[in-house]
Amino acid sequence: MGNDKKLTLQSEDFSAWYNEVVQRAELADHSPVRGSMVIRPWGYGIWEHMQSALDVMFKETGHENAYFPLLIPMSFIEREKEHIEGFAPELAVVTRAGGKELEEPYVIRPTSETIVYSMYAKWVQSYRDLPVLLNQWANVIRWEMRTRLFLRTSEFLWQEGHTAHATAEEAEEETLLILELYRKFMDEWLAMPPITGLKTDSEKFAGAVSSYSCEALMKDRKALQTGTSHFLGQNFSKQFELTFQSENGKEEYAWNTSWGVSTRLVGGVVMTHGDDNGLVIPPRLAPTQVVIIPILAGEETSEVLAKADEVLDQLKNTGVRARIDNRDHLSPGAKYFEWERKGVPFRVEIGPRDLEKGQLALVRRLTAEGESRRAFVPEAEAIAKLPEKLEEFQDDLLEAARVRREDSTVRGVGSLGELEEAFDSGAGFVYTGWSGDPAIEEMVKERLKATIRVLPSQEFRSVTAPSRCVSGDRESVAEVVWARAY
Amino acid sequence: MGNDKKLTLQSEDFSAWYNEVVQRAELADHSPVRGSMVIRPWGYGIWEHMQSALDVMFKETGHENAYFPLLIPMSFIEREKEHIEGFAPELAVVTRAGGKELEEPYVIRPTSETIVYSMYAKWVQSYRDLPVLLNQWANVIRWEMRTRLFLRTSEFLWQEGHTAHATAEEAEEETLLILELYRKFMDEWLAMPPITGLKTDSEKFAGAVSSYSCEALMKDRKALQTGTSHFLGQNFSKQFELTFQSENGKEEYAWNTSWGVSTRLVGGVVMTHGDDNGLVIPPRLAPTQVVIIPILAGEETSEVLAKADEVLDQLKNTGVRARIDNRDHLSPGAKYFEWERKGVPFRVEIGPRDLEKGQLALVRRLTAEGESRRAFVPEAEAIAKLPEKLEEFQDDLLEAARVRREDSTVRGVGSLGELEEAFDSGAGFVYTGWSGDPAIEEMVKERLKATIRVLPSQEFRSVTAPSRCVSGDRESVAEVVWARAY
Repeated sequence: MGNDKKLTLQSEDFSAWYNEVVQRAELADHSPVRGSMVIRPWGYGIWEHMQSALDVMFKETGHENAYFPLLIPMSFIEREKEHIEGFAPELAVVTRAGGKELEEPYVIRPTSETIVYSMYAKWVQSYRDLPVLLNQWANVIRWEMRTRLFLRTSEFLWQEGHTAHATAEEAEEETLLILELYRKFMDEWLAMPPITGLKTDSEKFAGAVSSYSCEALMKDRKALQTGTSHFLGQNFSKQFELTFQSENGKEEYAWNTSWGVSTRLVGGVVMTHGDDNGLVIPPRLAPTQVVIIPILAGEETSEVLAKADEVLDQLKNTGVRARIDNRDHLSPGAKYFEWERKGVPFRVEIGPRDLEKGQLALVRRLTAEGESRRAFVPEAEAIAKLPEKLEEFQDDLLEAARVRREDSTVRGVGSLGELEEAFDSGAGFVYTGWSGDPAIEEMVKERLKATIRVLPSQEFRSVTAPSRCVSGDRESVAEVVWARAY
Repeated sequence: MGNDKKLTLQSEDFSAWYNEVVQRAELADHSPVRGSMVIRPWGYGIWEHMQSALDVMFKETGHENAYFPLLIPMSFIEREKEHIEGFAPELAVVTRAGGKELEEPYVIRPTSETIVYSMYAKWVQSYRDLPVLLNQWANVIRWEMRTRLFLRTSEFLWQEGHTAHATAEEAEEETLLILELYRKFMDEWLAMPPITGLKTDSEKFAGAVSSYSCEALMKDRKALQTGTSHFLGQNFSKQFELTFQSENGKEEYAWNTSWGVSTRLVGGVVMTHGDDNGLVIPPRLAPTQVVIIPILAGEETSEVLAKADEVLDQLKNTGVRARIDNRDHLSPGAKYFEWERKGVPFRVEIGPRDLEKGQLALVRRLTAEGESRRAFVPEAEAIAKLPEKLEEFQDDLLEAARVRREDSTVRGVGSLGELEEAFDSGAGFVYTGWSGDPAIEEMVKERLKATIRVLPSQEFRSVTAPSRCVSGDRESVAEVVWARAY
């Protein structure tokens, strides 16, 4: 399969590098279905770790899982005007089923607000039934014209949270609680530190009052929207008669939020940490954290294999996800190459010499410049220390990603000329003032291919708020962050 | 919501009882999409426990998870003849997407053999790439005319395993390994002990060489097919050119298996354990295993609530899934009623008197006849013993289900008259000889509405094999098990 071929260099063609590494590391593959991919075990394993971490966080904050239908009646999706305008071009439509033409076609969910709130309307009578805090893990379809593995596919996997509240304040709190939950999750699990903030009207979710998002910076200094949390106001509850009797006996419409992250995150991890040798998977997400490679030469083969088994058991006992690669038709070098490409955080090599010396050779997927990659460590010490070495690696990846983000962030840009210059000299996030006029957004998008990613949350704002809009001719109403984006 | 209304009695109308309990215990609800249901948190929580138990079992036996597209090109599903004949009447078809008519329509997967094996054909070159042992957790659609919550819905959730092997023997072993894994899972987790065996040709999976299934007996003495495992031979590998170079250099077709269980299992649990008061959920599956109900009367309210919190923490520390119901608009009695209907295994009541005496009142969802339901137990002892009491309850449920199955099993039936008599007098599983002639199956089905569920596996066969077919006029080639089935 040409699996021993070198990857295109990131510096040569980042996009080609991405496509190659995703396929050659067996994260995913193209399928015969237009725009749909197959997620292979190595990629799905990463997604499973993301899922279980998020699922715990959702449950700790009072959410429960449920499951709503894949199909949505056409008349439902059409009810909220902005919603259908936004999604109409991307719908896949079922017109025939059970051997007959359907009287009313169904769409495959591109997102589930309409079907979910139609059910909440049935379940909620009184303020006592609120809040409703549900999440579902599901597949959705949005018919995309230009697709890329993980980043933009017609079908993708995601979680979508849908909540209903008695007051606007409570729903807004929920929206921000989830935004912060996502940020923390991306920091701690993906080592992919996003900035967060409010979307402009031109980029908000179709049907929302306001949308917040997480925006992470990839190694090519383009932004990736990695998660969104929407305050929906009463837009959907009015269309679906989602009302409740308030504490003082009045009939009121509920307030909604929705929020989601998807398998796109796997692509984000690839573009945040990968290098010219392949993937680098943060230890907390790695399906295999440590691969043990026995070096079989000469007489000691069975002793080496026995030692490898012993080390495997001991690592498993310390909670490390480890495995042995004992395929006999590949050289150790070929195995190193393959597991580096797959991004396994640590490799343990065991050869006859190591056996003699009671040591293991530890190789970390990334080392600081100048540091030797292979460390020989007494066996017991190596095993005892691996769990903390994995945590260390996780922390190092987060720190490196943070430094990269900050190093390519430019603040205090005051004119369109400077904005252009910043992007020309390789900036990632560029902070400017903004008058709030969508025409400026439109113009910059056309000229520089950059968009306003967010009006940053407090913690990401510049110390001194800009006073003038980047266009120069008006006052600024808010600081904004520009970037070229996926 | 009429939630305080009594359920229809099982003895009056089992089917009405089932529909009521599923909805009133908030396991699931009907949706506006024909034949699709919404799985509510209480039902989804049960499914989550099933999923995680099975997922561990699959991984322990060397399987990995992956994800394949929801949509299947029409030309793919049509390639294996028996397969499309079986599934054609149930297909949902996407004919329009992205605002255009599609040149080739897609079907929503009713099952994924065709798309999966088309990918395996791309990935497998050599015997070294075998076996491929993948599973996916997914939704599927089969357009059913008559649907029932969980038992038969147009969309359902399931897992489907798909494997490829170098030899027929290895694939057959895999088929039986999974059949046994399912049986064990249903015994140990669902307390729903199935019999297992081979399906007759008329009931096998469309496209399989042979199908095995698990068949469990519900409380109304009807059988439910709860899981299937199929040996597919080379039927699909030939259609999708799934070949490999064997160890001696020959190009050969791979051998496949597929296997699945679905959300139907939730319905099975309802019909295996439920009673006239509602659900009875086996502790290992229960989203909440112990509900704590503070009895708030008089002055001691805050002390009672504090004690309830303390008991909750202690139970959680012992690994018990517990929660407090401290809603203040419901009486303790109303709460007892509701949690019994929801099938929570144990209830802990704490009132001022219990506080004084340092005791808790424990109530098990089911007790042996004559046994008092409410046991007063010193607090520390109650908390320490609850984990084992939950295991005991789990075991008791399995034993009771086994006894019910055996009590309604009739063996050694030698004629059609006796077969009819057996069903007339309330038999569940009836064992007879069979000549292998499908005409007999057809006739019995028409006359008695009973079908051959399986040719039982060794462990479920009668000690003495029947010598004559139930039809009387021929020799028996195999013992078979008849039942009326869902």
